[in-house]
Amino acid sequence: MPNDPRPEPAHRASEQRDPAKGALHGVRVIDLTQFEAGTSCTETLAWLGAEVIKVEEPTKGEQGRGASTDKPGVDSHYFMLLNANKLSVTANLKHEKGRAVLCELIKGGDVFVENFAPGVIERLGFGYDAVKALNPRIVYVQVKGFGSDTPYKDYLAFDMIAQATGGAISITGDPDGRPIKPGPTIGDTGTGLHAAIGVLAALYQRQFTGEGQHIRLAMQECVINYGRISYAAQYLWGHAAPRMGNQSIMGTNSPSEIYPCKGGGPNDYCYIYTSRANPQHWERLLKIIGREDLIGDPRFTSPQERFKNRHIVDEMVAAWTTHHDKMAVMKRLGDAGIPAGAVLDTMELSGDPDLNRRGIFVTVKHPVRGDFKMPGWPVKMSASNVPIIAAPLLGADTEEVYSRVLGLSKEEIAALRAEKAI
Amino acid sequence: MPNDPRPEPAHRASEQRDPAKGALHGVRVIDLTQFEAGTSCTETLAWLGAEVIKVEEPTKGEQGRGASTDKPGVDSHYFMLLNANKLSVTANLKHEKGRAVLCELIKGGDVFVENFAPGVIERLGFGYDAVKALNPRIVYVQVKGFGSDTPYKDYLAFDMIAQATGGAISITGDPDGRPIKPGPTIGDTGTGLHAAIGVLAALYQRQFTGEGQHIRLAMQECVINYGRISYAAQYLWGHAAPRMGNQSIMGTNSPSEIYPCKGGGPNDYCYIYTSRANPQHWERLLKIIGREDLIGDPRFTSPQERFKNRHIVDEMVAAWTTHHDKMAVMKRLGDAGIPAGAVLDTMELSGDPDLNRRGIFVTVKHPVRGDFKMPGWPVKMSASNVPIIAAPLLGADTEEVYSRVLGLSKEEIAALRAEKAI
Repeated sequence: MPNDPRPEPAHRASEQRDPAKGALHGVRVIDLTQFEAGTSCTETLAWLGAEVIKVEEPTKGEQGRGASTDKPGVDSHYFMLLNANKLSVTANLKHEKGRAVLCELIKGGDVFVENFAPGVIERLGFGYDAVKALNPRIVYVQVKGFGSDTPYKDYLAFDMIAQATGGAISITGDPDGRPIKPGPTIGDTGTGLHAAIGVLAALYQRQFTGEGQHIRLAMQECVINYGRISYAAQYLWGHAAPRMGNQSIMGTNSPSEIYPCKGGGPNDYCYIYTSRANPQHWERLLKIIGREDLIGDPRFTSPQERFKNRHIVDEMVAAWTTHHDKMAVMKRLGDAGIPAGAVLDTMELSGDPDLNRRGIFVTVKHPVRGDFKMPGWPVKMSASNVPIIAAPLLGADTEEVYSRVLGLSKEEIAALRAEKAI
Repeated sequence: MPNDPRPEPAHRASEQRDPAKGALHGVRVIDLTQFEAGTSCTETLAWLGAEVIKVEEPTKGEQGRGASTDKPGVDSHYFMLLNANKLSVTANLKHEKGRAVLCELIKGGDVFVENFAPGVIERLGFGYDAVKALNPRIVYVQVKGFGSDTPYKDYLAFDMIAQATGGAISITGDPDGRPIKPGPTIGDTGTGLHAAIGVLAALYQRQFTGEGQHIRLAMQECVINYGRISYAAQYLWGHAAPRMGNQSIMGTNSPSEIYPCKGGGPNDYCYIYTSRANPQHWERLLKIIGREDLIGDPRFTSPQERFKNRHIVDEMVAAWTTHHDKMAVMKRLGDAGIPAGAVLDTMELSGDPDLNRRGIFVTVKHPVRGDFKMPGWPVKMSASNVPIIAAPLLGADTEEVYSRVLGLSKEEIAALRAEKAI
């Protein structure tokens, strides 16, 4: 199995000028990830133009394929959301020849990412030292729940465990209510994006040093980074940052709330905020809601005073918002230079024509499910714009990749398959 | 003002091998950011080793310095959390000579980042085309609330507006309650991290093309990326993803909840989860809570059945957890291979000895406030480890930077200052 004779980066300068090939065109990722915290990292790299080769167990594939599927045997939507633009090959890592195939992939790879349960990848023989020995240029990434030198290093983690232990749940919910888990999966995708930052920085660094490195992330610790501002609240109040309902985490302003709008549905609300830095927001708002009479009223002149009197503020703002639908409230206030945002649900967002035109939602063709609409990649780069394509079926690219990348013949591939090595 | 005679990247190979200098050593960022969505991007770049020159208005500086401060005239904790490891210089962009200083900085810069209100940077004369004309190698980044070709392009945005319009608020809260804003600032810091990904990818790409590019991000759209999995829930249920309380967003499993623990304080809870992919989690849990009698009970054999009977599940798990404190619950279950995580608050996290030893919390020395503990950078890289230092006072580095980078004499700097140009 010869190494892939890829041209060196310096020879690819002209190709790089094609935005459709992406910023990471020419970078190969060996992807051993599963579920979300790892797969969201490698999907990001694919959307930046990297070639991501997802290496999966041959019979069922990565666990996310089956998890939460509505149709047994058909890849879940969950999987499809996290594995677009990847290639899928199979390798049985409990078979000597399956491991040999992975070794060859590693020799021709630039990045290796895994997020198995603690200890698994090392037991499979692909810990950092082993992979580095095969390819010292590789950027090797491990995502776990907790730091590798903490009492919790062997514990399993999922998004919600990271959100609990990283502080996100403690600061979400109503002040007098129980803690609530944020809906967005910042423990999983939030960590995957941090991992992508590490990979990209290491690839840049490698241009100067010629060497790869070992990158480690703990989901708990990445969640802490998203809660950064709550430590300002802790300093301000002298105790742990409290739950603030819909208030800003600093709790020093009003309005800073969702207000009920016409319709009365579960998401018929509009968030209205007035910046701490711009007192005009409040006066503009008073004019729109027909309460110019309160301009200059000392109960409301500063954010602090309005916060003290927020129950009065909330009542009078709501008295106006309930007569208008949420989009009209957002438009009326936005046009007047007041920060306002309708509480949009997933159906409204995925149906939004502007977001679809911009590729924030894209419809891909899946070989089994057909048309599938999914969120795309939100970072718009003038010289890197990779079209989004559907997640691969299990092993869809085994023949192509093992032939092109490893130089295996059809017969060799068939033999490996017969032995259940791939 | 001559350009900075920095060595070309190829000459810096040996320096790059010092991990303390960081992966981005040699990269210069011209930082026009304010508040959080932009500052979190450039802080991330600084923690990867970039030289970040924060260019501020000369009298009050960036607005985040004063916002929410507890001591008027002293930089806020909020600012300190978002501007560590940066240099601060002043330039009056309404003064011709102040703009000339910024032009010279741009000529020697690699990255330019701004997140002013829509239209401001263009009115100041530093829109993309102007900056590109000065330096075609520059990576130019703009962070706004909404896409630049949408009806909301001119609207102001803050974290909560992005969380409302990006769907995060609609999927957070109890099923029968109102929408709740997640505490973590995924609209702000969550967008800043996406911006950092764009910068890093563009810097890598520039190694091959020699050219910079234009990167644009909308906070609304980055929030959508964190809510990716809720679109699987939408497919599953056939309507907008609902609020699920503490359940996983897919709502297909039990236990998947926070359970009350001994103490009864506002955060005395432990999250307990059983993976969809591993039925052993449930049986292990039954043994620990002393309910082996229910192993095999058809009401609880699958995640789906347990979800249907989750009120019974929750009651019997809580009957056990309430007798133990949250750390004991986490340890007991974690040791047994069951995913569990205590709901930790900011005080518990910032006091955790392991997280402090690992640099997830660091204490920096601020010239006015003295010792200040803050979250550090969670991506641990074996060849890039930048010590964290306190945010600069306004203009702390004006003389050093304008002398070293622009070659200005003390007299020239004093003259610019006297003219209120810097």
